[in-house]
Amino acid sequence: MNDPRVKMAMLGSADEIEAEFYEAMRHGDLDRMMAVWSEDEDIACVHPGGPRVVGTVAVRAAFEAVFVNGPVHVEIAHVHRMDLAHCAIHHVTEKVQAMTEQGLKTAYVMVTNVYVRSAQGWRMVTHHASSGMAQDLPDITEPRTTLH
Amino acid sequence: MNDPRVKMAMLGSADEIEAEFYEAMRHGDLDRMMAVWSEDEDIACVHPGGPRVVGTVAVRAAFEAVFVNGPVHVEIAHVHRMDLAHCAIHHVTEKVQAMTEQGLKTAYVMVTNVYVRSAQGWRMVTHHASSGMAQDLPDITEPRTTLH
Repeated sequence: MNDPRVKMAMLGSADEIEAEFYEAMRHGDLDRMMAVWSEDEDIACVHPGGPRVVGTVAVRAAFEAVFVNGPVHVEIAHVHRMDLAHCAIHHVTEKVQAMTEQGLKTAYVMVTNVYVRSAQGWRMVTHHASSGMAQDLPDITEPRTTLH
Repeated sequence: MNDPRVKMAMLGSADEIEAEFYEAMRHGDLDRMMAVWSEDEDIACVHPGGPRVVGTVAVRAAFEAVFVNGPVHVEIAHVHRMDLAHCAIHHVTEKVQAMTEQGLKTAYVMVTNVYVRSAQGWRMVTHHASSGMAQDLPDITEPRTTLH
Protein backbone atom coordinates (compact mmCIF):
# COMPACT_ATOMS: atom_id res chain seq x y z
CA MET A 1 0.00 0.00 0.00
CA ASN A 2 3.05 2.26 0.24
CA ASP A 3 3.91 1.54 -3.36
CA PRO A 4 3.56 4.87 -5.25
CA ARG A 5 2.35 2.99 -8.35
CA VAL A 6 -0.63 1.80 -6.33
CA LYS A 7 -1.48 5.31 -5.12
CA MET A 8 -1.26 6.68 -8.66
CA ALA A 9 -3.46 3.94 -10.05
CA MET A 10 -6.00 4.51 -7.30
CA LEU A 11 -6.71 7.99 -8.66
CA GLY A 12 -6.97 6.73 -12.21
CA SER A 13 -9.60 5.48 -14.63
CA ALA A 14 -11.49 2.21 -14.57
CA ASP A 15 -8.91 0.94 -17.10
CA GLU A 16 -6.07 1.76 -14.73
CA ILE A 17 -7.85 0.08 -11.82
CA GLU A 18 -8.34 -2.97 -14.04
CA ALA A 19 -4.65 -2.98 -14.98
CA GLU A 20 -3.86 -2.83 -11.25
CA PHE A 21 -6.22 -5.78 -10.58
CA TYR A 22 -4.29 -7.97 -13.04
CA GLU A 23 -0.92 -6.75 -11.74
CA ALA A 24 -2.01 -7.76 -8.23
CA MET A 25 -2.99 -11.19 -9.61
CA ARG A 26 0.37 -11.60 -11.34
CA HIS A 27 2.21 -10.65 -8.14
CA GLY A 28 -0.06 -12.61 -5.79
CA ASP A 29 -0.18 -9.41 -3.72
CA LEU A 30 -3.20 -9.42 -1.43
CA ASP A 31 -2.93 -5.82 -0.15
CA ARG A 32 -2.49 -4.52 -3.68
CA MET A 33 -5.52 -6.59 -4.75
CA MET A 34 -7.76 -5.31 -1.99
CA ALA A 35 -6.78 -1.68 -2.73
CA VAL A 36 -8.48 -2.16 -6.12
CA TRP A 37 -11.82 -3.08 -4.53
CA SER A 38 -14.49 -0.77 -3.17
CA GLU A 39 -14.95 -0.92 0.59
CA ASP A 40 -18.69 -1.35 0.06
CA GLU A 41 -20.06 -4.39 1.89
CA ASP A 42 -21.98 -5.42 -1.24
CA ILE A 43 -18.91 -6.16 -3.40
CA ALA A 44 -19.10 -9.65 -4.86
CA CYS A 45 -16.73 -12.09 -6.52
CA VAL A 46 -17.23 -15.42 -8.28
CA HIS A 47 -14.11 -17.46 -9.08
CA PRO A 48 -14.50 -20.14 -11.78
CA GLY A 49 -16.80 -22.94 -10.59
CA GLY A 50 -16.88 -21.49 -7.09
CA PRO A 51 -19.56 -20.02 -4.88
CA ARG A 52 -20.41 -16.32 -4.76
CA VAL A 53 -18.36 -14.42 -2.19
CA VAL A 54 -19.85 -11.21 -0.78
CA GLY A 55 -18.30 -8.42 1.30
CA THR A 56 -14.74 -7.21 1.88
CA VAL A 57 -13.77 -9.79 4.51
CA ALA A 58 -14.96 -12.75 2.46
CA VAL A 59 -13.52 -11.39 -0.82
CA ARG A 60 -10.14 -10.88 0.86
CA ALA A 61 -10.24 -14.44 2.19
CA ALA A 62 -11.12 -15.76 -1.27
CA PHE A 63 -8.10 -14.06 -2.88
CA GLU A 64 -5.88 -15.16 -0.01
CA ALA A 65 -6.92 -18.73 -0.84
CA VAL A 66 -6.06 -18.16 -4.53
CA PHE A 67 -2.64 -16.67 -3.71
CA VAL A 68 -1.71 -19.59 -1.44
CA ASN A 69 -0.71 -21.24 -4.72
CA GLY A 70 1.42 -18.25 -5.68
CA PRO A 71 1.03 -15.62 -8.41
CA VAL A 72 -1.54 -16.19 -11.13
CA HIS A 73 -0.26 -16.18 -14.70
CA VAL A 74 -3.10 -14.21 -16.23
CA GLU A 75 -3.36 -11.65 -18.97
CA ILE A 76 -6.19 -9.93 -20.82
CA ALA A 77 -6.76 -11.65 -24.17
CA HIS A 78 -9.39 -9.09 -25.14
CA VAL A 79 -11.87 -6.74 -23.49
CA HIS A 80 -15.14 -5.09 -24.47
CA ARG A 81 -15.89 -1.97 -22.44
CA MET A 82 -19.12 -0.22 -21.56
CA ASP A 83 -17.87 2.92 -19.84
CA LEU A 84 -20.58 5.14 -18.38
CA ALA A 85 -20.33 8.24 -16.20
CA HIS A 86 -20.68 6.46 -12.86
CA CYS A 87 -20.01 2.82 -13.62
CA ALA A 88 -17.92 0.82 -16.06
CA ILE A 89 -18.64 -2.74 -17.14
CA HIS A 90 -15.67 -4.53 -18.65
CA HIS A 91 -16.21 -7.85 -20.43
CA VAL A 92 -12.80 -9.44 -20.24
CA THR A 93 -11.54 -12.68 -21.74
CA GLU A 94 -8.64 -13.74 -19.53
CA LYS A 95 -5.83 -16.01 -20.75
CA VAL A 96 -4.72 -18.03 -17.73
CA GLN A 97 -1.73 -20.36 -17.79
CA ALA A 98 -0.82 -22.96 -15.18
CA MET A 99 1.73 -25.76 -14.95
CA THR A 100 0.02 -29.11 -14.42
CA GLU A 101 1.15 -32.72 -14.35
CA GLN A 102 0.34 -32.74 -18.06
CA GLY A 103 2.54 -29.71 -18.71
CA LEU A 104 1.66 -26.06 -19.28
CA LYS A 105 -2.09 -25.61 -19.73
CA THR A 106 -3.88 -22.55 -21.08
CA ALA A 107 -7.49 -21.64 -20.34
CA TYR A 108 -9.62 -18.76 -21.54
CA VAL A 109 -11.95 -17.40 -18.89
CA MET A 110 -15.03 -15.24 -19.53
CA VAL A 111 -15.14 -12.45 -16.96
CA THR A 112 -17.39 -9.52 -16.11
CA ASN A 113 -15.65 -6.81 -14.09
CA VAL A 114 -17.73 -3.89 -12.81
CA TYR A 115 -16.24 -0.64 -11.50
CA VAL A 116 -17.99 2.23 -9.75
CA ARG A 117 -16.76 5.80 -9.42
CA SER A 118 -16.59 6.90 -5.79
CA ALA A 119 -15.21 9.94 -4.02
CA GLN A 120 -11.92 8.01 -3.78
CA GLY A 121 -11.84 7.27 -7.52
CA TRP A 122 -12.84 4.20 -9.51
CA ARG A 123 -13.08 0.92 -7.60
CA MET A 124 -13.97 -2.67 -8.51
CA VAL A 125 -17.30 -3.86 -7.13
CA THR A 126 -17.81 -7.13 -9.08
CA HIS A 127 -15.54 -9.81 -10.53
CA HIS A 128 -17.47 -12.73 -12.04
CA ALA A 129 -15.38 -15.41 -13.78
CA SER A 130 -16.91 -18.40 -15.54
CA SER A 131 -15.12 -21.73 -15.86
CA GLY A 132 -12.21 -21.71 -18.30
CA MET A 133 -12.41 -22.96 -21.86
CA ALA A 134 -9.60 -24.48 -23.91
CA GLN A 135 -10.15 -22.05 -26.78
CA ASP A 136 -10.45 -18.30 -27.07
CA LEU A 137 -13.97 -17.80 -28.40
CA PRO A 138 -14.28 -14.50 -30.24
CA ASP A 139 -17.16 -12.22 -29.24
CA ILE A 140 -20.22 -12.53 -31.45
CA THR A 141 -21.29 -9.12 -32.60
CA GLU A 142 -23.77 -10.16 -35.25
CA PRO A 143 -25.82 -13.31 -35.69
CA ARG A 144 -23.99 -16.15 -37.37
CA THR A 145 -27.13 -17.46 -39.03
CA THR A 146 -30.39 -15.90 -40.08
CA LEU A 147 -33.45 -18.01 -39.41
CA HIS A 148 -35.84 -16.02 -41.54
CA MET B 1 -44.99 -4.78 -26.63
CA ASN B 2 -48.65 -3.79 -26.42
CA ASP B 3 -49.00 -5.63 -23.12
CA PRO B 4 -49.74 -2.95 -20.45
CA ARG B 5 -47.76 -4.97 -17.88
CA VAL B 6 -44.66 -4.51 -20.02
CA LYS B 7 -45.16 -0.76 -20.28
CA MET B 8 -45.65 -0.46 -16.51
CA ALA B 9 -42.56 -2.52 -15.80
CA MET B 10 -40.54 -0.43 -18.24
CA LEU B 11 -41.02 2.62 -16.02
CA GLY B 12 -40.17 0.70 -12.90
CA SER B 13 -37.16 -0.11 -10.75
CA ALA B 14 -34.24 -2.40 -11.56
CA ASP B 15 -36.09 -5.08 -9.55
CA GLU B 16 -39.15 -4.73 -11.76
CA ILE B 17 -37.03 -4.91 -14.93
CA GLU B 18 -35.40 -8.04 -13.53
CA ALA B 19 -38.80 -9.59 -12.81
CA GLU B 20 -39.77 -8.78 -16.39
CA PHE B 21 -36.56 -10.45 -17.69
CA TYR B 22 -37.48 -13.71 -15.95
CA GLU B 23 -41.13 -13.48 -17.05
CA ALA B 24 -39.92 -13.12 -20.64
CA MET B 25 -37.72 -16.22 -20.12
CA ARG B 26 -40.64 -18.20 -18.71
CA HIS B 27 -42.85 -17.20 -21.64
CA GLY B 28 -40.15 -17.57 -24.29
CA ASP B 29 -41.27 -14.12 -25.49
CA LEU B 30 -38.54 -12.49 -27.58
CA ASP B 31 -40.12 -9.03 -27.92
CA ARG B 32 -40.81 -8.89 -24.19
CA MET B 33 -37.20 -9.96 -23.55
CA MET B 34 -35.69 -7.32 -25.79
CA ALA B 35 -37.85 -4.57 -24.21
CA VAL B 36 -35.93 -5.27 -20.99
CA TRP B 37 -32.57 -4.53 -22.59
CA SER B 38 -30.94 -1.17 -23.21
CA GLU B 39 -30.64 -0.16 -26.85
CA ASP B 40 -26.95 0.62 -26.26
CA GLU B 41 -24.69 -1.18 -28.75
CA ASP B 42 -22.40 -2.24 -25.90
CA ILE B 43 -24.90 -4.52 -24.15
CA ALA B 44 -23.43 -7.97 -23.59
CA CYS B 45 -24.71 -11.42 -22.73
CA VAL B 46 -22.99 -14.69 -21.84
CA HIS B 47 -25.15 -17.82 -21.72
CA PRO B 48 -23.73 -20.79 -19.76
CA GLY B 49 -20.66 -22.20 -21.49
CA GLY B 50 -21.23 -19.99 -24.52
CA PRO B 51 -19.36 -17.15 -26.17
CA ARG B 52 -19.88 -13.50 -25.32
CA VAL B 53 -22.58 -11.86 -27.41
CA VAL B 54 -22.37 -8.09 -27.91
CA GLY B 55 -24.91 -5.59 -29.27
CA THR B 56 -28.68 -5.59 -29.69
CA VAL B 57 -28.80 -7.60 -32.93
CA ALA B 58 -26.56 -10.38 -31.63
CA VAL B 59 -28.23 -10.48 -28.19
CA ARG B 60 -31.65 -10.79 -29.84
CA ALA B 61 -30.36 -13.64 -32.03
CA ALA B 62 -28.92 -15.39 -28.95
CA PHE B 63 -32.27 -15.31 -27.11
CA GLU B 64 -34.08 -16.36 -30.27
CA ALA B 65 -31.83 -19.43 -30.32
CA VAL B 66 -32.67 -20.14 -26.66
CA PHE B 67 -36.42 -19.78 -27.22
CA VAL B 68 -36.38 -22.18 -30.20
CA ASN B 69 -36.57 -24.84 -27.49
CA GLY B 70 -39.57 -23.15 -25.90
CA PRO B 71 -40.01 -21.31 -22.59
CA VAL B 72 -37.25 -21.61 -19.99
CA HIS B 73 -38.29 -22.95 -16.59
CA VAL B 74 -36.24 -20.55 -14.50
CA GLU B 75 -36.79 -18.86 -11.16
CA ILE B 76 -34.66 -16.79 -8.84
CA ALA B 77 -33.35 -18.97 -6.00
CA HIS B 78 -31.74 -15.97 -4.31
CA VAL B 79 -30.33 -12.57 -5.21
CA HIS B 80 -27.80 -10.19 -3.69
CA ARG B 81 -28.32 -6.60 -4.82
CA MET B 82 -25.95 -3.67 -5.09
CA ASP B 83 -28.30 -0.85 -5.99
CA LEU B 84 -26.61 2.47 -6.75
CA ALA B 85 -28.02 5.73 -8.06
CA HIS B 86 -27.22 5.10 -11.72
CA CYS B 87 -26.54 1.38 -11.96
CA ALA B 88 -27.68 -1.75 -10.19
CA ILE B 89 -25.71 -4.99 -10.01
CA HIS B 90 -27.79 -8.04 -9.14
CA HIS B 91 -26.03 -11.28 -8.24
CA VAL B 92 -28.68 -13.87 -8.97
CA THR B 93 -28.64 -17.60 -8.39
CA GLU B 94 -31.09 -19.04 -10.92
CA LYS B 95 -32.85 -22.36 -10.45
CA VAL B 96 -33.33 -23.82 -13.94
CA GLN B 97 -35.32 -26.99 -14.62
CA ALA B 98 -35.37 -28.99 -17.82
CA MET B 99 -36.78 -32.34 -18.86
CA THR B 100 -34.04 -34.63 -20.13
CA GLU B 101 -33.80 -38.27 -21.16
CA GLN B 102 -32.87 -38.94 -17.54
CA GLY B 103 -35.98 -37.14 -16.25
CA LEU B 104 -36.41 -33.68 -14.73
CA LYS B 105 -33.04 -32.08 -14.01
CA THR B 106 -32.38 -29.03 -11.87
CA ALA B 107 -29.34 -26.77 -12.18
CA TYR B 108 -28.31 -23.71 -10.21
CA VAL B 109 -26.73 -21.01 -12.32
CA MET B 110 -24.60 -18.13 -11.03
CA VAL B 111 -25.59 -14.93 -12.79
CA THR B 112 -24.54 -11.29 -12.78
CA ASN B 113 -27.22 -8.94 -14.13
CA VAL B 114 -26.36 -5.26 -14.53
CA TYR B 115 -28.96 -2.52 -15.05
CA VAL B 116 -28.40 1.11 -15.93
CA ARG B 117 -30.82 3.98 -15.40
CA SER B 118 -31.53 5.84 -18.62
CA ALA B 119 -33.98 8.53 -19.65
CA GLN B 120 -36.39 5.71 -20.52
CA GLY B 121 -36.03 4.07 -17.11
CA TRP B 122 -33.91 1.15 -15.90
CA ARG B 123 -32.64 -1.24 -18.56
CA MET B 124 -30.52 -4.39 -18.56
CA VAL B 125 -27.03 -3.95 -20.04
CA THR B 126 -25.33 -7.21 -18.97
CA HIS B 127 -26.44 -10.79 -18.34
CA HIS B 128 -23.54 -13.12 -17.53
CA ALA B 129 -24.46 -16.70 -16.60
CA SER B 130 -21.89 -19.31 -15.57
CA SER B 131 -22.40 -23.02 -16.19
CA GLY B 132 -25.00 -24.63 -13.95
CA MET B 133 -24.22 -26.60 -10.82
CA ALA B 134 -26.23 -29.48 -9.35
CA GLN B 135 -26.43 -27.81 -5.94
CA ASP B 136 -27.45 -24.38 -4.70
CA LEU B 137 -24.27 -23.05 -3.12
CA PRO B 138 -25.06 -20.42 -0.49
CA ASP B 139 -23.22 -17.10 -0.77
CA ILE B 140 -20.14 -16.87 1.43
CA THR B 141 -20.28 -13.69 3.47
CA GLU B 142 -17.47 -14.45 5.90
CA PRO B 143 -14.43 -16.66 5.62
CA ARG B 144 -15.09 -20.29 6.42
CA THR B 145 -11.63 -20.81 7.84
CA THR B 146 -9.05 -18.55 9.41
CA LEU B 147 -5.49 -19.19 8.33
CA HIS B 148 -3.83 -17.09 11.00
